Amino acid sequence: MATAHKASKTVNGVAVDDLFSTIDAVKATPSIAKFKFRIQNQWQTGSRNCSMVTAFTGANQELSHPKKFTLQADEPAILLGNDTAANPVEYLLHALASCLTTSMVYHASARGIQIDQVESSFEGDLDLHGFLNLDPKIRKGYQGIRVRFKIRANVPDDQLEEIVRLGTQHSPVFDSLTKGVPVSVSTESM
Amino acid sequence: MATAHKASKTVNGVAVDDLFSTIDAVKATPSIAKFKFRIQNQWQTGSRNCSMVTAFTGANQELSHPKKFTLQADEPAILLGNDTAANPVEYLLHALASCLTTSMVYHASARGIQIDQVESSFEGDLDLHGFLNLDPKIRKGYQGIRVRFKIRANVPDDQLEEIVRLGTQHSPVFDSLTKGVPVSVSTESM
Repeated sequence: MATAHKASKTVNGVAVDDLFSTIDAVKATPSIAKFKFRIQNQWQTGSRNCSMVTAFTGANQELSHPKKFTLQADEPAILLGNDTAANPVEYLLHALASCLTTSMVYHASARGIQIDQVESSFEGDLDLHGFLNLDPKIRKGYQGIRVRFKIRANVPDDQLEEIVRLGTQHSPVFDSLTKGVPVSVSTESM
Repeated sequence: MATAHKASKTVNGVAVDDLFSTIDAVKATPSIAKFKFRIQNQWQTGSRNCSMVTAFTGANQELSHPKKFTLQADEPAILLGNDTAANPVEYLLHALASCLTTSMVYHASARGIQIDQVESSFEGDLDLHGFLNLDPKIRKGYQGIRVRFKIRANVPDDQLEEIVRLGTQHSPVFDSLTKGVPVSVSTESM
């Protein structure tokens, strides 16, 4: 009955027993909850640069991804790029989308809620008057982002919003982006 | 003298004449500065989901990337994923890195500053007590992000910080992340 055994421990592809074990481990040893995530970026030319994602710190250990992830960035032609990759503000929407989705799925799984399907769309407003320094009243960043979730799950339709709220209540990227994060910058020559 | 002609118009791979034309065009027709960027995300299973980046609005037009960009997300094994892709908070660092770099390069190019090489590293602190709801005083998102730029450019070393400041002063992602963005979320069944 290996299959049934596995099914009883995995909800929505999340190993919920491992999730509860993680919670117990953090309660026993609070320092294992501290993580440091890192990337290294190299400029190529113009609007093209790429980030390498290789290692991070967590659970009091230095940890590595099994393979290095390389993330390219570019700009579309209308913004003077070569359109070889998504641009930085599109990556920001992906960070938000992926984090809201995963946070929702983990917390729903911990509550035993089965989710069948999730699709979402994200749209953000930018006004180049900010980036181009043409109007000091217009911010450089996104003026607002609209998110639309479509979900199929084993709950009544009027409870779907509560499932999505599990994402907005717990997502590290949603929290970072809506509340702001202190960023310190240092510079040296090479 | 095509090469010399081209060199006079391109600085650091940025077509600066096109950049100045863009500024003139925005001054003449302010509405072309309004952009909407979009992604669509699909949940796969557990911590795996992917975003499609296909189209955006800008310069009063619906515009498409020449090819669709697909961005995967996952979590490492220690966070109950399969480690097939960078995770959402690593994507957030990439969005910040790529935007700071491109913003710096564009604005330095407009000033005629030649940049030879740029590398940067980004590190952010997360405490899982937030995500796991174990301590209401600990935020879900990044507590802080440290950025370290290394630059080689045709300016004295003591002016390198001013070049990096062109990035922090103009970057849409830096502005979004340090000051926060309003995000509205709607939900429907499927």
